[in-house]
Amino acid sequence: MTDSDRTPVTVLGLGAMGTALAEALLAAGHPTTVWNRTRHKAEPLVARGARPATDVADAIAASRLVIVCLLDHASVHATLDGHAERVRGRALVNLTSGTPAQAEELAAWAAAHGADHLDGGIMAVPTMIGSREAFVLYSGSRHAFQDHRAVLEVLAETHYLGEEPGRAAVHDVALLSGMYGMFMGVLQSFAVIRTEGVPATTFAPLLGRWLSAMAGFVDGAARQIDEGDYTLDVSSSLAMQAGAFAELLHATEERGISTRLLAPLGRLLDRRVADGHGDEDITGVLELLTLDHRKDPS
Amino acid sequence: MTDSDRTPVTVLGLGAMGTALAEALLAAGHPTTVWNRTRHKAEPLVARGARPATDVADAIAASRLVIVCLLDHASVHATLDGHAERVRGRALVNLTSGTPAQAEELAAWAAAHGADHLDGGIMAVPTMIGSREAFVLYSGSRHAFQDHRAVLEVLAETHYLGEEPGRAAVHDVALLSGMYGMFMGVLQSFAVIRTEGVPATTFAPLLGRWLSAMAGFVDGAARQIDEGDYTLDVSSSLAMQAGAFAELLHATEERGISTRLLAPLGRLLDRRVADGHGDEDITGVLELLTLDHRKDPS
Repeated sequence: MTDSDRTPVTVLGLGAMGTALAEALLAAGHPTTVWNRTRHKAEPLVARGARPATDVADAIAASRLVIVCLLDHASVHATLDGHAERVRGRALVNLTSGTPAQAEELAAWAAAHGADHLDGGIMAVPTMIGSREAFVLYSGSRHAFQDHRAVLEVLAETHYLGEEPGRAAVHDVALLSGMYGMFMGVLQSFAVIRTEGVPATTFAPLLGRWLSAMAGFVDGAARQIDEGDYTLDVSSSLAMQAGAFAELLHATEERGISTRLLAPLGRLLDRRVADGHGDEDITGVLELLTLDHRKDPS
Repeated sequence: MTDSDRTPVTVLGLGAMGTALAEALLAAGHPTTVWNRTRHKAEPLVARGARPATDVADAIAASRLVIVCLLDHASVHATLDGHAERVRGRALVNLTSGTPAQAEELAAWAAAHGADHLDGGIMAVPTMIGSREAFVLYSGSRHAFQDHRAVLEVLAETHYLGEEPGRAAVHDVALLSGMYGMFMGVLQSFAVIRTEGVPATTFAPLLGRWLSAMAGFVDGAARQIDEGDYTLDVSSSLAMQAGAFAELLHATEERGISTRLLAPLGRLLDRRVADGHGDEDITGVLELLTLDHRKDPS
């Protein structure tokens, strides 16, 4: 390892994710300074070679690369606001979960105080940090990304999305929406199969296999969206799916299971059929998700 | 190919799925008799060697194995009811989409007329039939399944779930619920990313990768459900997820995108937190999906 491979890094915030980030940095040999509001959380990291900062000022002074991973946007400001004069010339890499608007706000704050700002959306749970599965989406200062990319790669695969500060957060919102939809389906699926007395662990391999087989919907839908043509490669028409979906909801209720998680999709399918799009694919439902105060279907 | 490998099979119903089934049977060398309400749909199959039945009676008479793949349960009765006396001694394999109650009803009808009944849920789109990806869940007559398994394997991998006629359909309802949840997430995800002007086909690989990375939820949730312990291996507590989810919905609305597909999950998360389960995993939401007239949270 050469000197240039040993970049001092500071990590602010030692929740499960911040701790995982600091562990990966330490494992890669980077001198790592850590800070947490409640100090005891730093102890396991200090035992592994991290330097505990005496306070936020000390933590920021220790490294030109400052990774922020706190509870939320308010915590970021509560931590940094008293130290605005200390961030000049540093790269603030904010991996705290937040919205696009919050990323834009922090980018403006950093710029006003002479710091480079990079917003990152961590697409991983803490146990995945440092593994090939994890990836982080970055947007903001290209300069900061290029300067620190090698260090950031230690945490997870990096994807740089451009200078707009909010872009990574928009991707984060989109990807989390996809995940929560999948979770809703999985929970609904287990609720139904439980009525048959089938153990969830017996059923899980079938569910995993089926979701994996149907994941091709992502690429097919993407082509339809970009072509602006929801009739492209339709394997089951929206009208047929609307009918099958109504049966699905009916059968679900017959099993004594609530349809509250799935019912909103049924209403959108019916609406698309009523609007004359029954021959298209289900993807066209997307058009009903854009809020439009003139004709919002509620 | 020996004589025993050439089992005469009848296929009733030549929609996209019935046609795919007949094609797979023909490709495997089975003498295949086909019937459809509108006869012209049989023509491409006849060109590939299928025998066109003159009517339903002829179609049923042609084979001891009769595969039924019609539009819905009503079509199945409309097709078979006039021929109840002809089904004796035959195996009716019903691959028409239907509910558990419909499967039970048809099993009783078949038993009353001396036929073996097997209900099947096709977990595939027509283009997947005959490929390794496709699988069919069967329940009903074990005898019929064992007798005809070799032929049925030509269509897709077979999973026999037991004698209860409705069991395959319950699995079908559960798996389709999972799929539609995933679709809801995918549509929501594309709706959000479109607001950033990112092409869907640029974003799709990230979404596919992320959903695949998060699919481990299926196995983790299954263990929690079977153990009856939602605090098992929690990586992000329900309370934290409820907070993050509220932020997600807020950010979604800020982008001008409707939260109607995801909002019901938010209400269930909040309810679980209010009920004192904030330290558990999100999986506990399952408990709110069982309808209970005494304390149904609406």
